[in-house]
Amino acid sequence: MITQSSIDKFLERLASADPTPGGGSAAAIMGAMGAALVSMVCSVSIGKKDYEAVHAELQALRARSEVLRLRLTAMVAEDVAAFGSLMAAYKLPKASELDKARRAEAIQAGLRLATEVPLDCARVCADVIGLARRVGEHGYRGVISDAGVGAVTAFAAARSAALNVYINAPALKDRDFAHASVAELEKLLVRCAVESEAAYTIVCNKLET
Amino acid sequence: MITQSSIDKFLERLASADPTPGGGSAAAIMGAMGAALVSMVCSVSIGKKDYEAVHAELQALRARSEVLRLRLTAMVAEDVAAFGSLMAAYKLPKASELDKARRAEAIQAGLRLATEVPLDCARVCADVIGLARRVGEHGYRGVISDAGVGAVTAFAAARSAALNVYINAPALKDRDFAHASVAELEKLLVRCAVESEAAYTIVCNKLET
Repeated sequence: MITQSSIDKFLERLASADPTPGGGSAAAIMGAMGAALVSMVCSVSIGKKDYEAVHAELQALRARSEVLRLRLTAMVAEDVAAFGSLMAAYKLPKASELDKARRAEAIQAGLRLATEVPLDCARVCADVIGLARRVGEHGYRGVISDAGVGAVTAFAAARSAALNVYINAPALKDRDFAHASVAELEKLLVRCAVESEAAYTIVCNKLET
Repeated sequence: MITQSSIDKFLERLASADPTPGGGSAAAIMGAMGAALVSMVCSVSIGKKDYEAVHAELQALRARSEVLRLRLTAMVAEDVAAFGSLMAAYKLPKASELDKARRAEAIQAGLRLATEVPLDCARVCADVIGLARRVGEHGYRGVISDAGVGAVTAFAAARSAALNVYINAPALKDRDFAHASVAELEKLLVRCAVESEAAYTIVCNKLET
């Protein structure tokens, strides 16, 4: 059985007034859920007779989705740490000029981390969506809806990660880095939107027949 | 700290060859994550001085989002049970005519449940998106990205729930129920798409300023 109580507890922590875990952690978890569903559809399909022609491809897809799942799972803690370092920086003393300079520097380092972690999350989610599309094309029809769920979940994860970049990047003093991060993100989001819609449509079309 | 290991274990179960927990459970969890983030933004905002004028509204929003979060959390187990009853029905004996009739009846009951649970999930997610939009308008700017995350997460949950209806409804012999379910779902998805885009845009516009 599913570990219901552990999920309940996580959702309670997410709902609490404590800002961590927040949207950044939610993004990483959703990305990991998308990758996990890709892995599941691959595993179920590999066991089916009529899908022998695509066994090798499905095995390669699963190997890749498992790497991405573990990477995104690790990002949950990275997001909490990034947010924590930013919050800690804001609480540093600002009595002297030296204090102020140190605090400003720590805030900038925290903002940079709180931009890099969700940007990286969006990059990995784009890869998950690509895998979900391929498994939507080749996976076992009996669980193919889950390939579509994987795609829309990873897209929501990428958009959620984007919102975390948007809230942190404006305060970055390194404007080149901020602009480059947002520009890369915008490109990623376009690709994610197109690919996830394609995956969703492929799956819907299969379910209609 | 976040209960990292329990999330890891859930993601491993989701990735396993066992089809439950699958996309239906993922949909319910995402819906609950969306509601949880609405609650969190409300709670953080209620504690802020500049937001006193909207304290009462935020308290009402949080009361509602907490009801929806618990409803969606319960749906994780309901989805696993619905899928389980359908799988059990397919495994029933079909030696005699009576066996076959009983098995066919059990499959139809399972399919009906496996259509009703995700349809209900989509209904509740539509309500979560409405709340996310309002909290995106009135919540504390420092965590407002999480209102946007709540909206896109609940929309992905609704689309994921829809895919679970689409995979089960075609095999229903009660065509009136099947058509009515899909028709209601299509309407819900349009509303969810419009409202979640509105919420995302509201939040993005606030982050630009």
